[in-house]
Amino acid sequence: MSNGVEWAVHCCVVLSEAEGPVSTHRLAEFHEISPTYLAKHLQQLARAGLVASIEGRSGGYTLTRAAHRITVFDIVSAIEGRESSFRCSEIRQNGPLPASRTACRRACGIARVMYAADKAWRDSLKGVTVSDLAATIEMDAGPHTFDKLRAWLGGEPA
Amino acid sequence: MSNGVEWAVHCCVVLSEAEGPVSTHRLAEFHEISPTYLAKHLQQLARAGLVASIEGRSGGYTLTRAAHRITVFDIVSAIEGRESSFRCSEIRQNGPLPASRTACRRACGIARVMYAADKAWRDSLKGVTVSDLAATIEMDAGPHTFDKLRAWLGGEPA
Repeated sequence: MSNGVEWAVHCCVVLSEAEGPVSTHRLAEFHEISPTYLAKHLQQLARAGLVASIEGRSGGYTLTRAAHRITVFDIVSAIEGRESSFRCSEIRQNGPLPASRTACRRACGIARVMYAADKAWRDSLKGVTVSDLAATIEMDAGPHTFDKLRAWLGGEPA
Repeated sequence: MSNGVEWAVHCCVVLSEAEGPVSTHRLAEFHEISPTYLAKHLQQLARAGLVASIEGRSGGYTLTRAAHRITVFDIVSAIEGRESSFRCSEIRQNGPLPASRTACRRACGIARVMYAADKAWRDSLKGVTVSDLAATIEMDAGPHTFDKLRAWLGGEPA
């Protein structure tokens, strides 16, 4: 998994706590990460409909819906795609004793086990929202964490 | 995830149903896959202690323990390693408002969510054994599937 997931999730939490749009430059500055690569990941979030870009002098990105309606899975799949980590190449159909057509109407038993594990992973990520993450971060880092963030966002860009 | 996982799981099922050691050549022939690449993956299984190599004319690989004591997770981690798919680069420690040392005693809340999803994936794969897979394959492919396999394995190599 690329760093993009980590960056994108952190940015969504920041956007959920900001008072207005936040530019790519400011998000990159806040997390001390490459604005060029971050721009690419924010565009992936926009394509997935999770953030929108607001034009103009005080423009930037905002979330398109409430933070409790965006799950970690939404963000991860925006960045990494929705494909399973396992690819079945149907080797059961190979060799001297290939599986029958009837048997092959269902996915291979081995692939089914891998897909079930992928589903468990997805379900776990679907069970946590950006709003939950913000609450966790506030619990870990202290009650004024997001006040400080908002104050910094309201200040002058470097 | 590489094709190696698919190959390795199929091979473990074959070994669980074979009457004696099976050579890399025969396993590759049965699945119509590259013996060179398969050899590499069988060595990974051997390093993880799941299969052992028996020398000699009728030598080859065998499972080192009963099929109901080898989980799909054992095989997947032998091939792909045990690292999490998510790597936290601790960006919470960056920028103008870095997380405090106290906060950083625990993993970042975002990483914890990703690790919990990885655990759900691992637990799902730990819940299925090679013996379960063999039963599933027999159910899908018919009651004489492994009799045919054993007959083929007992025949002359190509």
